[in-house]
Amino acid sequence: MRGLLEPDNLRVVLIATRNPLNLGAAARAMSNFGFLRLRVVNPYELAFREARSAVGASAVLKHAEEFQSVADAVADCSLVVGTTTLRERERHHELYRLEEGAERMRGSLASQPVALLFGSEKTGLSNEDLSHCHWLMHIPTREKHPSMNLGQAVAVCLYEIVRSEHAKISPDPAEHASAEKLERITEVLLDALRDSGYLSPKASQTSEAKVRRLIRRLHLDAGDAELLLGMLRQIVWKLRSRK
Amino acid sequence: MRGLLEPDNLRVVLIATRNPLNLGAAARAMSNFGFLRLRVVNPYELAFREARSAVGASAVLKHAEEFQSVADAVADCSLVVGTTTLRERERHHELYRLEEGAERMRGSLASQPVALLFGSEKTGLSNEDLSHCHWLMHIPTREKHPSMNLGQAVAVCLYEIVRSEHAKISPDPAEHASAEKLERITEVLLDALRDSGYLSPKASQTSEAKVRRLIRRLHLDAGDAELLLGMLRQIVWKLRSRK
Repeated sequence: MRGLLEPDNLRVVLIATRNPLNLGAAARAMSNFGFLRLRVVNPYELAFREARSAVGASAVLKHAEEFQSVADAVADCSLVVGTTTLRERERHHELYRLEEGAERMRGSLASQPVALLFGSEKTGLSNEDLSHCHWLMHIPTREKHPSMNLGQAVAVCLYEIVRSEHAKISPDPAEHASAEKLERITEVLLDALRDSGYLSPKASQTSEAKVRRLIRRLHLDAGDAELLLGMLRQIVWKLRSRK
Repeated sequence: MRGLLEPDNLRVVLIATRNPLNLGAAARAMSNFGFLRLRVVNPYELAFREARSAVGASAVLKHAEEFQSVADAVADCSLVVGTTTLRERERHHELYRLEEGAERMRGSLASQPVALLFGSEKTGLSNEDLSHCHWLMHIPTREKHPSMNLGQAVAVCLYEIVRSEHAKISPDPAEHASAEKLERITEVLLDALRDSGYLSPKASQTSEAKVRRLIRRLHLDAGDAELLLGMLRQIVWKLRSRK
């Protein structure tokens, strides 16, 4: 049985963040994707204060909880996941690509508190930080330039977690133009083509069929068909009015 | 037959970007995910200069191409995709969730140049910008806070495009008409509509955008575009020859 993702179960944990803009950006992405519980561990004090007091600072940031250690910040969580770039130090953990990791996280998020850890801009998660993690995941960046901006990494991870949560919204299937309407368009276009000399007055059936097929390939919806028909009628009227 | 995603076919197009940090962040995400071709349209001059000269500015940013109009920036692209939040203005376009939109883009990216448009931080894409798009996609943010930071939106979109790279890519069979060709058709149709009195000689930008969107919705392939252009040219020639 699968439960629903419970966003309130996720704690995004930012460790030793240095740049107030990154704190702000991470909080904004959280708000965009509906994850509102931010925890910060030993942020640069000034950065945290600046970010919190910035104009337009999000509610997420204002309600962020501050901790002195990773252990405290993840104490109530039953799953702790770290983020890393591939090349960082020796690995002692299972490492999943983001899409697989997010799928695993969704399973837990239905019923349990889960922590998702992001390290500092400069050094990422330390070995001590990593030691609190059950497993790690990485965003599939290219080898030549693997390290993402912190705010962008948070955005991409959260996007992946909500990504498949909602059913697909397929755009309203547009109402297609009726065959009758398409045939009217074809006739008026043929008139315009004859009147303009593009087709000879006695154009062959082959030419007519070519125009007919063209109109069908356009996959017009009802509204566009009406629009096009109006344009063509006016053009034909004008072509004829000058004869 | 399946092709591979060809990252070099993607042009990320940033329109009227105001903040140099966002230009830098967008370029960084591009580099992270292996898309190296950035185009900027009318960026705030100072922002562009600052971003380019910033310490650690990426190669992507240094090689960015600058354009004066959206039409020029997408001229060589056979698919033009806009990004939008759900609530922006009235919709005239098909709108897909990012994951579905990215899947569609991957199909084209295997063989053809594709443009992905991002509007300014404040206003997003204008109606004129949108009129150059074949369809739109949106990131599934929550209703209460839908608007993402520009750099994060770029990161999430590019992530989604590479995400399933190793999974399915079904290339589009048809060679789509280039944006340049579609713009030619739009211009000639506008001439026909003005000459026939359907539009007043000084038709508003709104009317022009309406015609431009109609042409994009037809999803013309290269052959049909040529055919339609020939027809319209002859009609305009005739309309004028009698004046």
